[in-house]
Amino acid sequence: MKQFPNNLAEAIEWLSSFGAVSEGGVTRTLYSKPWKEAQQALREWMELLGLKTKFDSLGNLFGRLPTADPEDPTILVGSHVDTVISGGKYDGAYGIVAAILALSHLKKEYGQPILNLEVVSLCEEEGSRFPIACSGSGLVTGTYSFADMIGVRDSNGMGFETAMKEAGFGLEADNYTVRNDIHAFVELHIEQGPSLEKLAKSIGIVQTIIGQKRFRITVKGEPNHAGTTLMKWRKDALSGGVLMIHELYELAKEYDENLVTTVGQLFVEPNVSNVIPGQIVFTVDARHPVESVLSSFCERFTSRFLAIAASAGLEIEIEKWHEVLPVQMDPSLNERIETICVKEKVSYHVMNSGAGHDAQLFAQVCPTTLIFVPSQGGISHSPLEYTSPADLEKGLEVLIQLLHQLAYPQQKGGAL
Amino acid sequence: MKQFPNNLAEAIEWLSSFGAVSEGGVTRTLYSKPWKEAQQALREWMELLGLKTKFDSLGNLFGRLPTADPEDPTILVGSHVDTVISGGKYDGAYGIVAAILALSHLKKEYGQPILNLEVVSLCEEEGSRFPIACSGSGLVTGTYSFADMIGVRDSNGMGFETAMKEAGFGLEADNYTVRNDIHAFVELHIEQGPSLEKLAKSIGIVQTIIGQKRFRITVKGEPNHAGTTLMKWRKDALSGGVLMIHELYELAKEYDENLVTTVGQLFVEPNVSNVIPGQIVFTVDARHPVESVLSSFCERFTSRFLAIAASAGLEIEIEKWHEVLPVQMDPSLNERIETICVKEKVSYHVMNSGAGHDAQLFAQVCPTTLIFVPSQGGISHSPLEYTSPADLEKGLEVLIQLLHQLAYPQQKGGAL
Repeated sequence: MKQFPNNLAEAIEWLSSFGAVSEGGVTRTLYSKPWKEAQQALREWMELLGLKTKFDSLGNLFGRLPTADPEDPTILVGSHVDTVISGGKYDGAYGIVAAILALSHLKKEYGQPILNLEVVSLCEEEGSRFPIACSGSGLVTGTYSFADMIGVRDSNGMGFETAMKEAGFGLEADNYTVRNDIHAFVELHIEQGPSLEKLAKSIGIVQTIIGQKRFRITVKGEPNHAGTTLMKWRKDALSGGVLMIHELYELAKEYDENLVTTVGQLFVEPNVSNVIPGQIVFTVDARHPVESVLSSFCERFTSRFLAIAASAGLEIEIEKWHEVLPVQMDPSLNERIETICVKEKVSYHVMNSGAGHDAQLFAQVCPTTLIFVPSQGGISHSPLEYTSPADLEKGLEVLIQLLHQLAYPQQKGGAL
Repeated sequence: MKQFPNNLAEAIEWLSSFGAVSEGGVTRTLYSKPWKEAQQALREWMELLGLKTKFDSLGNLFGRLPTADPEDPTILVGSHVDTVISGGKYDGAYGIVAAILALSHLKKEYGQPILNLEVVSLCEEEGSRFPIACSGSGLVTGTYSFADMIGVRDSNGMGFETAMKEAGFGLEADNYTVRNDIHAFVELHIEQGPSLEKLAKSIGIVQTIIGQKRFRITVKGEPNHAGTTLMKWRKDALSGGVLMIHELYELAKEYDENLVTTVGQLFVEPNVSNVIPGQIVFTVDARHPVESVLSSFCERFTSRFLAIAASAGLEIEIEKWHEVLPVQMDPSLNERIETICVKEKVSYHVMNSGAGHDAQLFAQVCPTTLIFVPSQGGISHSPLEYTSPADLEKGLEVLIQLLHQLAYPQQKGGAL
């Protein structure tokens, strides 16, 4: 007989066994064998705990603790089951297993809810196989449709549709119905940053998932011999580029600490030690919770870049290739979480999320919140990802109390 | 019957047909099929013109216009037959065909010389197949021995010795005798830089082949999430690195125009747009004709790099992996060239060479000089490499007169 977990610690280990790689890491990309096995095992576990399960056409898995009337609204809670390549055990997985345990607990303690309670194990958030992040939550909320995914290929050239059908999904894609019964969405997730650890807080209450803009900067000069070309005759793309990047970081210092900017990727052409770089291409990632602040920062650095290029006789192209507006979490849900933390004497920090999450998509269609627990060393997307069992339990406790308030409103707290 | 060239312009085109690639480019790497065919064809052409030819064990080709007494000293003149991948028609090749035409002319005009006159087509200068630049001149001068080459592999993993033997060389490697009869070495070469063109001069008389030092700098920080890690908590290897590179270029401005420095190669890890760079590796190439000046520059930039790393909490490793001391060309030979230019009303410029050449190796063992002709746009190591026929002819004319003075001393000018 199959073994299913009995508590949170066991559940984390159990789910991480699907796609386990060395040193505690997990690789569970969309429609892969471990991904399919994990979703199937989660379904069986949910059924065992008395939840009514179903897959949608994309592969999102739902487990429902229903009310007496199928027309009642639904409190949806969950996170994503997919991982990056060699990711950690907690990213996404924690939010799913905690949601299942929370519903199981509420069912045992309080029986049938007044609002439907439903877990979702979202099939794709990372975009680590196909380059469409949050396609699971995007489809549920109607932000994306199947048409957005057809034609996308993974790095081996396999098409999204082929992979989906091989995994046994996509059969009723034409008749997909966007959910309109979701009354609230709650996501519990590891922070993936160092703030809670550095501030010694157990719970992060997310106000804003911050906006981001990503740029690709191409600087063109003239490749020439490093020995025979005097400095005054050079058009060195990298020499101009390093000044741009340095000034980008200097400019960031003029903003509040919520402004973060990163040059993560840089390519040099021809990248040979004795040839003056003729071209460089680099990315700029810039994020801030307030759109107007972020836009002002981006305008200022692009204008500095243009000026540096002009004065160095370099050509420059600046292309914005990715943009996400800041998204607010629901203040009323957050107030409930804060009250729970105070009452339970759980330390908390009201903060922003610098990373993207499925909650971003749900926030477009219903009151949504995102609850963080600490990440040791701020490390994520790595086998070294770790959250202490005590912190994991505190997150689960807060989640249970919030869901109790929301789904059993006559007993405590009142409806949303 | 085979066709051989009748003049300089034809000779350049003819030699470039061995290993021709698109747009006028040439790929003729050591021991490749076009390389073997080129050396064989050069041998046949030399024989046709009355030179006594032989290969040494490595594949250097010599063509001798001998005196009456085999014990007489030799004036050696030539350059290298190998090219970089997709190089130009002139680099190396010009110095060989001009030397052959010069000896042919002197033989016709003046008959048997007083000192032996000998062309050399050096088999390897670029190091573009096996990473041992100047191995041809290095062996002739005794700077290198076969032991330095055995064990070296090309980028396909083929060993030097295997390639050499497959090309039909290396048979008498054990009995290789370093030449001790070379009285002077003369190399005629394209400038591979823009100085002569910018100054509108036809001939460059090289005083010094400048020294160079190359470093590999590794900067280590901490890779982290670009969205969740506040600026104040980062250890961004690239942020530190761009400041280092910027200050390197600022420091160079404090020196005279003969100081050139280049960061040609830069690798970022993990090189992903939303991950703070955890490590970067970059090269620094620094050159100057005066060793003490170059050393002082390198000491100053390394100490700045260490200070920047320390203040940013980054680890740094600085490794010097290549060093060439400055080499002086022979003042007496250069005086003769200057006098010839003045007499012939050929414009000239006394200058340094920022690039390395076979002449560097010969300068260790005999009076040596290096004569430049202009490179259009300063472009070299490219199919776009170009020198006008008029400039090529002026270089040949100067070479003929110099060799005449050196090898027919009783007729004109006197011995070295």
